[in-house]
Amino acid sequence: MSVFRRRYEEYRQAVETYLNGLFAEKAPWGDLYESMRYSLLAGGKRIRPVLTLEFARLAGGEDAWKAALPVACALELVHTYSLIHDDLPCMDDDDLRRGKPTNHKVYGETMAVLAGDALQAAAYQLILTNKEISAERRLRCALQLAEASGQDGMVAGQVLDTLHEPKTEEELRQVHRLKTGAMIRAACVMGCIAGGGSDEMCEAAGEYALEVGMAFQIRDDLLDVIGSAEEFGKPIGSDREEGKCTFVDLLGVEGCEEAVLQCTAKAKAAAAAYDADGFLTVMADQLAKRNA
Amino acid sequence: MSVFRRRYEEYRQAVETYLNGLFAEKAPWGDLYESMRYSLLAGGKRIRPVLTLEFARLAGGEDAWKAALPVACALELVHTYSLIHDDLPCMDDDDLRRGKPTNHKVYGETMAVLAGDALQAAAYQLILTNKEISAERRLRCALQLAEASGQDGMVAGQVLDTLHEPKTEEELRQVHRLKTGAMIRAACVMGCIAGGGSDEMCEAAGEYALEVGMAFQIRDDLLDVIGSAEEFGKPIGSDREEGKCTFVDLLGVEGCEEAVLQCTAKAKAAAAAYDADGFLTVMADQLAKRNA
Repeated sequence: MSVFRRRYEEYRQAVETYLNGLFAEKAPWGDLYESMRYSLLAGGKRIRPVLTLEFARLAGGEDAWKAALPVACALELVHTYSLIHDDLPCMDDDDLRRGKPTNHKVYGETMAVLAGDALQAAAYQLILTNKEISAERRLRCALQLAEASGQDGMVAGQVLDTLHEPKTEEELRQVHRLKTGAMIRAACVMGCIAGGGSDEMCEAAGEYALEVGMAFQIRDDLLDVIGSAEEFGKPIGSDREEGKCTFVDLLGVEGCEEAVLQCTAKAKAAAAAYDADGFLTVMADQLAKRNA
Repeated sequence: MSVFRRRYEEYRQAVETYLNGLFAEKAPWGDLYESMRYSLLAGGKRIRPVLTLEFARLAGGEDAWKAALPVACALELVHTYSLIHDDLPCMDDDDLRRGKPTNHKVYGETMAVLAGDALQAAAYQLILTNKEISAERRLRCALQLAEASGQDGMVAGQVLDTLHEPKTEEELRQVHRLKTGAMIRAACVMGCIAGGGSDEMCEAAGEYALEVGMAFQIRDDLLDVIGSAEEFGKPIGSDREEGKCTFVDLLGVEGCEEAVLQCTAKAKAAAAAYDADGFLTVMADQLAKRNA
């Protein structure tokens, strides 16, 4: 197994184990914990926390990623809350997520709203109680998360994506920079902060993240057209049916493939100075080629 | 004008001015900022931030409340997000809040979900960027907020209140300790922390808060029966029509009046050692007598 695959698996496994330990006791508030866990443990590639852990390692040394685990998992809590709310009938109204019924299909809309709200609060609890890193680093990590996920980050992207209709390439790029890019950027920067990286490293991590995030999103639009429903876990062409404008509409299939390569090249260049054993390079390449 | 009234007005005005400065610029994300401001600036007594500011003053000296203003206002952001989500059709389905159309009635459900989500993230931004207090105090304040508002606090209370049916006095008290008590407690404790108060003071502030919060809630149930619709801003008897069990059902009107007095007395006793000029005493008495 390659160094990349082995390390990715080590990170992913540590993330699953950590997440699996959350909200595990029996609380007397009905299904709340269960509903939070249902979506939190529904799988996924755990790209954001993996990026956090690798940047923590690059910034702080071989074992530094372990102290960053709560910070990495906090990102997954916020990502999960956004998926639960995004699937609600008044939002994208999706019945399936990763091949499983969405949260509100299982627990009802009321609980889905509340489980999402609680996951957001819990994300800050994880970061702020993480005694493995200094108070100042915890504070900076929590602020990165709040800024990336809020009114000028992820939520702003959701508003533009759901309530407006991006029509040009620039508008579409803006939506995705906000909706997914900001959180991937936070993942990388929070890793640097947790590991004690310099401001220059945070800057480079942020650039890497935004390019990887854009490549990821363009690939997503591509897969929606050329992928297979089984591999992708949601009905193929679902964005097209809703009449949403995608990168494929604007750039065509070949144009998208080229754009993915360009973003990936820029990502690798941004991180080159820090990517000692090539993990970030392989990560960017894998995301650019992914089929699911 | 009494010392109490003058100081309450000074706090309230400072809170309104601070909140009015938030999300005020024109962001290119449609109505998001406007919808956040609509609910944030819809009035209200600002009880939580006023308590924060008074405890900051008691802990840190005459002007210490000024440095605690962002912390105090963060509580109002979280309180506001919870009201927006609570009013949604899949929750309490309310059309009016403080006599005005609810957020989703004006901006639609999608925006109401997202405005609430963004307000939660923005609350942490306010606390964590408040350079007027030390990093350690900021961190402790943000953690109080996260714990009070999350899966073992406010959201747990919402779950019990909305999806379960509290039937006994003990169950009803638990719902309200979680749903409103936890956040009022956080308001008082965060004030102590921001002002540099001791652990003993935080403890006393927490006790004061839980008793004041319980008195507030019992009074709320009483007003729902004996108040006037005009003063109270929501249709009288609305909880009764939904068939919810209230303190009035369990204790009767006189029993509720007695319970309010008991909680208020306990609150005053808990805070007596710190309440030099009686602000907290008058505050507890005023809340116990309020008609709206």
